[in-house]
Amino acid sequence: MKRKSQGVPSGFRDLLPEEAKVKAWLVKTIKEVYQKWGFLPIETPAVEFTETLVGEVTDFNLFNVAPSKERQTGKSQGLSLRFDHTVPLARFVVDNMSEITFPFKRFVTGSVFRGEAAQVDKGRFRQFDQFDIDIVGSSNIASDVEVILCMRDTMRAIVGEKFVIKVNTRKLLNCLPELFQFDKDKLKDVLIELDKRDKVSQKSLIESIKDIGIGQDEAMKLAEFGMISGDRDDVLTKVKNLFKNISSANEAISDLETINQALKVCNAKEIIFDMSVIRGLGYYTGTVFETNLLEAPAFGAVYSGGRYDGLLESFGVQALPAVGSSAGIDRMVAALMSIDFKVDADKKKVIVLPIDQSVTPYAFRVAERVREVGYVCEVYTGNKKKLSDRFTYADKLGYDYTLIVGEDEEKNETINIRNQKTKEQKTLSLSELKNFE
Amino acid sequence: MKRKSQGVPSGFRDLLPEEAKVKAWLVKTIKEVYQKWGFLPIETPAVEFTETLVGEVTDFNLFNVAPSKERQTGKSQGLSLRFDHTVPLARFVVDNMSEITFPFKRFVTGSVFRGEAAQVDKGRFRQFDQFDIDIVGSSNIASDVEVILCMRDTMRAIVGEKFVIKVNTRKLLNCLPELFQFDKDKLKDVLIELDKRDKVSQKSLIESIKDIGIGQDEAMKLAEFGMISGDRDDVLTKVKNLFKNISSANEAISDLETINQALKVCNAKEIIFDMSVIRGLGYYTGTVFETNLLEAPAFGAVYSGGRYDGLLESFGVQALPAVGSSAGIDRMVAALMSIDFKVDADKKKVIVLPIDQSVTPYAFRVAERVREVGYVCEVYTGNKKKLSDRFTYADKLGYDYTLIVGEDEEKNETINIRNQKTKEQKTLSLSELKNFE
Repeated sequence: MKRKSQGVPSGFRDLLPEEAKVKAWLVKTIKEVYQKWGFLPIETPAVEFTETLVGEVTDFNLFNVAPSKERQTGKSQGLSLRFDHTVPLARFVVDNMSEITFPFKRFVTGSVFRGEAAQVDKGRFRQFDQFDIDIVGSSNIASDVEVILCMRDTMRAIVGEKFVIKVNTRKLLNCLPELFQFDKDKLKDVLIELDKRDKVSQKSLIESIKDIGIGQDEAMKLAEFGMISGDRDDVLTKVKNLFKNISSANEAISDLETINQALKVCNAKEIIFDMSVIRGLGYYTGTVFETNLLEAPAFGAVYSGGRYDGLLESFGVQALPAVGSSAGIDRMVAALMSIDFKVDADKKKVIVLPIDQSVTPYAFRVAERVREVGYVCEVYTGNKKKLSDRFTYADKLGYDYTLIVGEDEEKNETINIRNQKTKEQKTLSLSELKNFE
Repeated sequence: MKRKSQGVPSGFRDLLPEEAKVKAWLVKTIKEVYQKWGFLPIETPAVEFTETLVGEVTDFNLFNVAPSKERQTGKSQGLSLRFDHTVPLARFVVDNMSEITFPFKRFVTGSVFRGEAAQVDKGRFRQFDQFDIDIVGSSNIASDVEVILCMRDTMRAIVGEKFVIKVNTRKLLNCLPELFQFDKDKLKDVLIELDKRDKVSQKSLIESIKDIGIGQDEAMKLAEFGMISGDRDDVLTKVKNLFKNISSANEAISDLETINQALKVCNAKEIIFDMSVIRGLGYYTGTVFETNLLEAPAFGAVYSGGRYDGLLESFGVQALPAVGSSAGIDRMVAALMSIDFKVDADKKKVIVLPIDQSVTPYAFRVAERVREVGYVCEVYTGNKKKLSDRFTYADKLGYDYTLIVGEDEEKNETINIRNQKTKEQKTLSLSELKNFE
């Protein structure tokens, strides 16, 4: 069978070992935090019914899927690859309702797929992994705090303190029409403009808000409101003052106060309030949040989410409030690679070099012993016979020690250890092997 | 937006936490062994060009993929979901040749997809995870040994000694026409029949071999040959005797002898030789092997592979010999669940129950401290106020301790610990918290 490699399709990619190691470390690190916070693992399939994913919406750019034979016969069902983990979670909860204890705290990871064009330089691919936590079945603001603090712990485990989590609530944004006296129907367009705060000048922000049909004064006030960001106490003071006559904002302010107090006793200095955090317009109903890496701001929000109390209802079941967050694994990896992030060194690595084929069995026995002692170990199984070629292989792959075994070693049950850095060699008995340092 | 859940598409499935925990443990366990053996991680995308996957073959039942908008405009490229990790590995090696040090030892995991009908009760799904190791770029039989022994260590880490790995070599099978004097063109059909040895009677096996156009005597001898299985020394003696006049079998026998010697010094009693192990006919060129779980034989081979020296060449590049093995994660999980396999208990789990909203911030501080001490810990963030309801939640999720915090606890910086099993309660100072036993 003849094949051809045309490389990978646009927006998809290979990970070489260096990058794959960073990704594996990232996934492991996040998983350990999620587990420590009591979240439980689940899995959902990559393929779902298209109707489950988007209902009757047709302009969403999904990847449609069909078995090749069924496609040929025209019998294929409407299947697509999932584009996030949140909609499949809702479907999962609907389908497994009787098996779930609420509030349901779960984590899930795996690839999601977008049919749209990729921006590979910004870490935006057509296939990327997300690692989500969600709490389903509680409207209690403590759930929002649990998610935000868990994100904080996760980010600390990844980059120490070099990140910021920005928190806002849609409940407050929903009061903007009343506060600044404009038509509620214009709120969506206003939020779309506020969301661009960091990308445009204050002047052009005001102009775009005016273009929606908002007066000069109100547009200026809205732009000013969008600038409110930073220390949580300061933001709270400003916001309370602004909304002091708007009773419909009381719940939003109470939410922000509870969040602030909990973050304060947990010393969460990396978390600020930011009135320009908007997130997906169709989804979120309360708290919203996003995370930026201080050393890689160009990659944008790498970890974000919020409260979405309407999603489960859209499946026609009882209203089940939910809040959650999604870490963009591949974007984080791209960001970390851009700042030369290095995973802590592996265990010391050892390679056994059998002098010839006849001592190969003994080489495997040696390797087994070396792994028992605690090192990473392989037997050199390549075709090259020259010792210098084998040393080159060992050095390229970062092996710390080479163990040369020949007939003498086998007969005496010894090993000849060479430190690849210092070039020092010594002979040790196999049975007394403990460590090489 | 209104959606509908029709459940998951046929052949796909959800994993609830209990099963997802087993799977996560399995993947982690396998990864740790692979790393310890010096294999390096890579990733390849789930989506590849169809031509990369199957060349010009059209009857393979792939899942074809197309972005919905491109499909509408008829502009979509020929893309499909990968059906294994081996073909993508070959494509990866071709595309990244200059970055790779050979022999290239890599591991990869992730979902693969088959368009064919599912057999869910046997653990055969349309999406399933495989966890592969391969060594590319060495024809040295030591590579085969490395893969087989690594499989042995992996299986030991999963089920102790309750497994068997059966090894054979296609090089020996290729000498069957010479040994039993039949037409080489009939070998493929003969192997297809021998592969069924465990599923049919000896008599009907002989009949089916005769149906290929093999004489009675030769058919009986072939069926007898297919029965040779068991202790490696015994099999070697039988095989050497059978093939003593067939010089083209020398290489095969030498391979088996090297493998046997290395397995012997590593005390690999779980590995036998079995002349009925055939594996994929189009692929393998040398050693072949498969693994069965002794306690769940109905699930068939859960971990198998072999040497495939022709695959890279099919991409039109230099011949690069390769050997590897693939663990069927989902089939193993299904098999393990069928024998009530339990993952070792998690760390002790603790839940903090704030008496009312005003002590929620303190509850998060307590939880933070408890996690620092080393427990899994969450704050109860549900809507239920009654303590009995909260205890029910804690018990359902297997929490070992509940920590009730109210205003007194906050004021005195203490916690009230309740052992959910013994119902014992005690009060501890937060700052002196170490452990609860």
